[in-house]
Amino acid sequence: MKASLVATGSELLRPGFRETNGDWITPRLEGEGFEVACRVVASDSTESIVEALGYARSQAPLVLLTGGIGPTRDDRTRQALALSSGRRLVRDAASEHRVRRWCATHRFPVTSAQLLQAFLPEGGRCIPNRVGSAPGIWLDMGPGALIALPGVPSEMQAMFEQLRPRLRRLSRSPVATRTMRCAGPGESRIDRRIQPLQKAFPEVEITTLAAPGEVTIQLRARGSDGRRQVEGLSTRVAERLGGDLVSARGETLENVVFRLLRARRWRLSVAESCTAGLVAARLTRVPGSSRVFWAGAVCYNDRAKTLMLSVPKSLIARHGAVSRAVALAMARGAMKAYGTELAVAVTGIAGPGGGSSRKPVGTVHWAVAFPGGETSFRRILAGDREKIRSHATCIALDCVRRVLLRRRRFGRPHS
Amino acid sequence: MKASLVATGSELLRPGFRETNGDWITPRLEGEGFEVACRVVASDSTESIVEALGYARSQAPLVLLTGGIGPTRDDRTRQALALSSGRRLVRDAASEHRVRRWCATHRFPVTSAQLLQAFLPEGGRCIPNRVGSAPGIWLDMGPGALIALPGVPSEMQAMFEQLRPRLRRLSRSPVATRTMRCAGPGESRIDRRIQPLQKAFPEVEITTLAAPGEVTIQLRARGSDGRRQVEGLSTRVAERLGGDLVSARGETLENVVFRLLRARRWRLSVAESCTAGLVAARLTRVPGSSRVFWAGAVCYNDRAKTLMLSVPKSLIARHGAVSRAVALAMARGAMKAYGTELAVAVTGIAGPGGGSSRKPVGTVHWAVAFPGGETSFRRILAGDREKIRSHATCIALDCVRRVLLRRRRFGRPHS
Repeated sequence: MKASLVATGSELLRPGFRETNGDWITPRLEGEGFEVACRVVASDSTESIVEALGYARSQAPLVLLTGGIGPTRDDRTRQALALSSGRRLVRDAASEHRVRRWCATHRFPVTSAQLLQAFLPEGGRCIPNRVGSAPGIWLDMGPGALIALPGVPSEMQAMFEQLRPRLRRLSRSPVATRTMRCAGPGESRIDRRIQPLQKAFPEVEITTLAAPGEVTIQLRARGSDGRRQVEGLSTRVAERLGGDLVSARGETLENVVFRLLRARRWRLSVAESCTAGLVAARLTRVPGSSRVFWAGAVCYNDRAKTLMLSVPKSLIARHGAVSRAVALAMARGAMKAYGTELAVAVTGIAGPGGGSSRKPVGTVHWAVAFPGGETSFRRILAGDREKIRSHATCIALDCVRRVLLRRRRFGRPHS
Repeated sequence: MKASLVATGSELLRPGFRETNGDWITPRLEGEGFEVACRVVASDSTESIVEALGYARSQAPLVLLTGGIGPTRDDRTRQALALSSGRRLVRDAASEHRVRRWCATHRFPVTSAQLLQAFLPEGGRCIPNRVGSAPGIWLDMGPGALIALPGVPSEMQAMFEQLRPRLRRLSRSPVATRTMRCAGPGESRIDRRIQPLQKAFPEVEITTLAAPGEVTIQLRARGSDGRRQVEGLSTRVAERLGGDLVSARGETLENVVFRLLRARRWRLSVAESCTAGLVAARLTRVPGSSRVFWAGAVCYNDRAKTLMLSVPKSLIARHGAVSRAVALAMARGAMKAYGTELAVAVTGIAGPGGGSSRKPVGTVHWAVAFPGGETSFRRILAGDREKIRSHATCIALDCVRRVLLRRRRFGRPHS
């Protein structure tokens, strides 16, 4: 069953605020067999909420709304639920009992504002709030329901957990999912490779998400055959992607590199020019990475390349700092200086300045030195400074991964 | 004028993905005189996008949509814009020219899928994309407009910046804004310091946005007196913040550090343990930073500290790698090894493991060595691994800034 998420609160539309309840709810709703069809953030006027509910109900039979059910002036959700469902608000004994008890416990006066929280649209049921004052609302609507929970995350979360069995009965259909990650080819190329597989698994929805140098593939199916179809398709996708597949189970690139290094007991050093620390920073996102990551030289400046990694000045003068020769010298230099089994080097032009017709902005050389060999390659990356840097970082980690997998496709790694 | 934000992409409705374009757009749209009325995340079927556009258009005259304008199968925004506006799709010469040029530069074949990006709803104008392949779309709709931009943040952001003058003409209600940045104290402390100033400038809305170690303050007022009030308040805020003010004009911390180094013709080297390259990476976001940033040693491992920066083994054994003595030795070592005027060092425990009762997770030591002196301090930072690392990075840059401003408040830099 599909579900729409609505968050109300004018502050959620202002700079610096972020709607996070939906991020928390999404995986849990999926776990109970729902698929989130849309998310809306609406301001807290009654009219806005009614219109948001109208749109949300047109997209899915289950609507889960957060916010606006407390006792203050800008809490307009009850009113909006009544208007949207065409039912009148009636005083609910169970809700009133809970509000009065909450006020007594917390020594709050039982004001008329507090008692507003005891009103529900006719036919609605009270959802007890064990953390705060405002009871939630469950309103059956045909095959689905309208649910209103508080916007305060701790209250919303506790109440959602109570609702899980009821939600499971409502959805009646488990969803199977699988996340796969790959590196190298772009999104459209990945898409073309996996598209022909879809026919044999018509029930599976395939979604791809691209970041510079990486593509995440989500597989998803419902129904009794869903799990089998997702597993079947993921096996075929893995075969198709070959060495471009980083993980068939959603593991990050840095985690995979870490795991492969651990398995071989190899240590890595990095020599970075244009990425200037990003390769080291990304690899060390993995807790415990000091066991495989030895040292990183950020030699952004030409003199630093000579000083830190013994790259001959004459080599830089002859080939330029952004060249195959210098990338290889950096990798060899790091391997020797830090005594590691493996070293990776990156040197490139991130822009916006520094490009030329022979070496345009985006030109990057990588080199890896490893026991008994070395490899290097060049690519011209697109985008602005930050995009080029993060793409170059991803490729650096990915070529370490490929070396560790003993693959040899380095001259043209992404063809 | 009100504005609705629509983000399309089925992956944005999946667990673990987050719609961040709207967070970036909101403050900038506000700066151009718009008020965000609602935000919608829709899946990427044509029907969903059409319905999301219908709702969004009912809420505001300007609709800004991101995502779904690329060349892949799940890019359905063009179609949806045409359906929603009741106009047919026509081939646009300017868009086609840009797509072909992009393919030529990046040696991509000009496929029919790529050429789909050259179609616009009739009457629409192409918005050039200088970072990626997909041109954007501007469609005038009565007093407002329908705008479609790519979902890739770097592309969307670059294109939004181009549109600012056009957006300003559309909103016709000038808003005076000012962005100020400060580093050191937390958000609530900054808030307490500047709150008393509000009374004298009642028209100005003050918003603060916190990141680890930094607070951005937005001042904003509309109407004829807006600019004067914003300027007046910003002067008072700057006085109040003193040395904690990084920039009164929204300049980033790394830019300020770069500028101060350039002005003195000083060169900087960095020695990083727990931040593992993040300080170097952040400073080199600034184009041209190779003129001030000399070298970075990522000595995540203890042995690397000795090898790269001549930190005595015995010192590490006696005090531990996370200690004032080792931080100072790292800074001195970097200064000497790389021959720079200034060196900054960071060593700490980012967690989740590695903490103890004497040195809990989050314990970080910084040291700066400079001509004729050195300074060091310690703090215990809160949060998870990534938060501790980025907070430590910010403090490292900030203490370089304070040294460059000849301030001496290092023992307790943030009191």
